[in-house]
Amino acid sequence: MSSAAELVVAESDPYLENDFVNEMVKQLRALDTYDTYEGWSKEKIIDPLVLTKEGKKEIPVIGDPDEITLARVKAYYNAIASTIENETGLMAVPVINITHEGFGRAFVLVGKLIVVDKTLRDIHRFGFPSLEKMCEQSGQMIAKAKGLIEKYNEAARD
Amino acid sequence: MSSAAELVVAESDPYLENDFVNEMVKQLRALDTYDTYEGWSKEKIIDPLVLTKEGKKEIPVIGDPDEITLARVKAYYNAIASTIENETGLMAVPVINITHEGFGRAFVLVGKLIVVDKTLRDIHRFGFPSLEKMCEQSGQMIAKAKGLIEKYNEAARD
Repeated sequence: MSSAAELVVAESDPYLENDFVNEMVKQLRALDTYDTYEGWSKEKIIDPLVLTKEGKKEIPVIGDPDEITLARVKAYYNAIASTIENETGLMAVPVINITHEGFGRAFVLVGKLIVVDKTLRDIHRFGFPSLEKMCEQSGQMIAKAKGLIEKYNEAARD
Repeated sequence: MSSAAELVVAESDPYLENDFVNEMVKQLRALDTYDTYEGWSKEKIIDPLVLTKEGKKEIPVIGDPDEITLARVKAYYNAIASTIENETGLMAVPVINITHEGFGRAFVLVGKLIVVDKTLRDIHRFGFPSLEKMCEQSGQMIAKAKGLIEKYNEAARD
């Protein structure tokens, strides 16, 4: 896995310059307590989050997902919360609740309001078909969250 | 620990007839998948939740809390959620998030609203000085939750 040629994400992928991808890389680095990513390119850091259909099939969904996989899920919802916080000026708190064997729920809380509530399945295979898809899905999630904050503004500011 | 004389909760404790205590016993029984409680009296089932100051000190807070302790915390927030649900007619969902070594957060969610948000510390020592205190504290928590549901009713019904 050391050769750049084996990466799914191309160096020329225009979404590498997307704000959300930048935030994701920042959050992944923040959770990288052992400095594994030192000297790594952005595309190399984000690459494990991009899973082709074939790549997904290769990952077994038996037992509890490992720490590295969990860190990716956390980084994703940290990036969602952080973007909501930047765009609304309100503190957004991510909560990941893994129940068992890769199932769980992800929340983002703003004040007394639940702005993101997502059921997690097969966390072992957490990933997106492309960076473009990741940006699209996170964009929709963030837009929905901002809509809720606008609609129930008093509860969000409580 | 088999003799009734060793229990902290007295058979004559009037709070054994309290609605919340009944709900707690029901929730503890629901989590008792191995039928350990079969044939047990109500006071024997609820007893481990009542901890004197001395009793608390005897429990070490090292490492992760065990399954039985976690089941008690879950039963408590299940009982809180269940009471809120009964009294408001709205679905209430308990979420327990244990982060590490007995720390975490407990939520009760109603619609898009967070009606209970409690920081958990030293879960190893989870308990109340008396059944009366348990009823008092849970009553306050439930009253506060109902206040929020009234205040942000539209979000709670979303």
